[in-house]
Amino acid sequence: MKNIMVVIVGSVALDSVKTKFGSRRGMLGGSVSYACPASSLYAPTGMVGVVGSDFPAKYIKFYRRKKVDISGLLVAEGKTFRWSGEYESDMINRRTISTELNVFAGFKPNLPEHYKGAPYVLLGNISPALQLHVLKQMKNPLFVMADTVDLWIRTEYTNLVNLMKKTTMLALNDSEARELTGKHDLRQSADAILRMGPKYVVIKKGEHGSILFCKNRIFIIPAYPVLEVADPTGAGDSFAGGFIGHLAMSGGINEKNILESMLIGSVIASFVVEEFGVNGLERLTKEKVALRLNKFKKMIKVF
Amino acid sequence: MKNIMVVIVGSVALDSVKTKFGSRRGMLGGSVSYACPASSLYAPTGMVGVVGSDFPAKYIKFYRRKKVDISGLLVAEGKTFRWSGEYESDMINRRTISTELNVFAGFKPNLPEHYKGAPYVLLGNISPALQLHVLKQMKNPLFVMADTVDLWIRTEYTNLVNLMKKTTMLALNDSEARELTGKHDLRQSADAILRMGPKYVVIKKGEHGSILFCKNRIFIIPAYPVLEVADPTGAGDSFAGGFIGHLAMSGGINEKNILESMLIGSVIASFVVEEFGVNGLERLTKEKVALRLNKFKKMIKVF
Repeated sequence: MKNIMVVIVGSVALDSVKTKFGSRRGMLGGSVSYACPASSLYAPTGMVGVVGSDFPAKYIKFYRRKKVDISGLLVAEGKTFRWSGEYESDMINRRTISTELNVFAGFKPNLPEHYKGAPYVLLGNISPALQLHVLKQMKNPLFVMADTVDLWIRTEYTNLVNLMKKTTMLALNDSEARELTGKHDLRQSADAILRMGPKYVVIKKGEHGSILFCKNRIFIIPAYPVLEVADPTGAGDSFAGGFIGHLAMSGGINEKNILESMLIGSVIASFVVEEFGVNGLERLTKEKVALRLNKFKKMIKVF
Repeated sequence: MKNIMVVIVGSVALDSVKTKFGSRRGMLGGSVSYACPASSLYAPTGMVGVVGSDFPAKYIKFYRRKKVDISGLLVAEGKTFRWSGEYESDMINRRTISTELNVFAGFKPNLPEHYKGAPYVLLGNISPALQLHVLKQMKNPLFVMADTVDLWIRTEYTNLVNLMKKTTMLALNDSEARELTGKHDLRQSADAILRMGPKYVVIKKGEHGSILFCKNRIFIIPAYPVLEVADPTGAGDSFAGGFIGHLAMSGGINEKNILESMLIGSVIASFVVEEFGVNGLERLTKEKVALRLNKFKKMIKVF
């Protein structure tokens, strides 16, 4: 088996999504379904997740076509996690219609042996307790990226603080950064987070891009402006996956490689939102990403 | 009298503003109060506006200290335009508590002779009829920038369309661009606007910066991330003023000068939002702008 460079843990879901361009039921969704194929464009990537016995074989085939190692994907008795939601016409705000955790409720993954030495880990948005549980099984990762949301700040603050001490890069949105630190202004809350452990903080701003905070430096990473957003689901997850996969193969963790990998992540996310669900990843290649990256660079070279 | 390089028309107001950092009553406000001092950092700038007989002398002194030519500022019988509003804790959304047009209701400016040959014109957010009225008095301006809002799209569409034919650069926000063109996606609506006359469209995104659309090119201009926003009022107006003042003195209208001037506008806006009302402009100098511009460039140089 190929040595895994990137381990990605998170949710696998069957999504029902409605946007003004239409609706889809039972689509492949969940953070790892976006992050793993994005990462595996660049690096050997191992998925950690759980599905139910109802999980369609065609989605397993999708992972395989995208060269994702799914030996860490558990098939449990029961139904797959289901999420349904509807986007407002601004294609930003969304309303969750229903969430059924199903087999995801009892998820406590054991990592395959050949995952444990992977130098790069992406801990998708699951509970910090679970993120820590995964991290404990890893030998000595070089770079740990963690995603979190407001729910965990409220319900698992202590675990989250412990996780942050072991995290290289924390990704969250601006209101979450404020909630986590009690500081309103973005730069102040990012500085407070940097003092809690992570070496890098990514503040995600959706269609407006993201800001990377490191010690004494700030970088503004715009989002690639797509012609038409069909479904914004998975933008953040495909950004994170593309970022870490590219970084893993870029020859070292430094500011230059981190920035280039963030641009790559932005470009991959732009392909994802142009189609429903994971469709934008289906025929995506490194070459297509590189072409759009060049266009993107022309847009952000303003001096 | 000095030859005017930039003519700026818009509102002068007495603002009462409440943010989570405090509230101020009867502050100097209105678009020209922000745009003119920002422009006059770089270029001889003439104001066009109207105030009532109650307008405090100290505000006139402020304009004079900022070297703004106010021979186009009319003092009319009656009360000055008043606006009061409150910002939500996100410092983005604001609620207008009251608007009293007062002398602004009958505003129909006649330009001083020495304004009429100015090559650069900034038509702040007033009715398109009034913007056209000002433009007709100008001899042959090189560059006309116009600001507009949703109200005029709904109530003065025909005048707005006529104005656009004479406009070099139109500035508006994303929802206004959508409303004006009936196209939802930003790139599509910007392209539609470019077909209506302007050579450049600036989509304003507040704290997320702006996007410049020109024929076949897009440029993403981030906003400078300030440490603490005290009062967001006037950010867009000081951006526009700083932009046009800098452009007027930059030696020619081309993409490079336009982009550099937009960065200058962003930096000036960042100083403005750090303090209440126009206070951030009081001690602002070209040197302070240049220092922050250097920092800003380091933040947006991501490859």
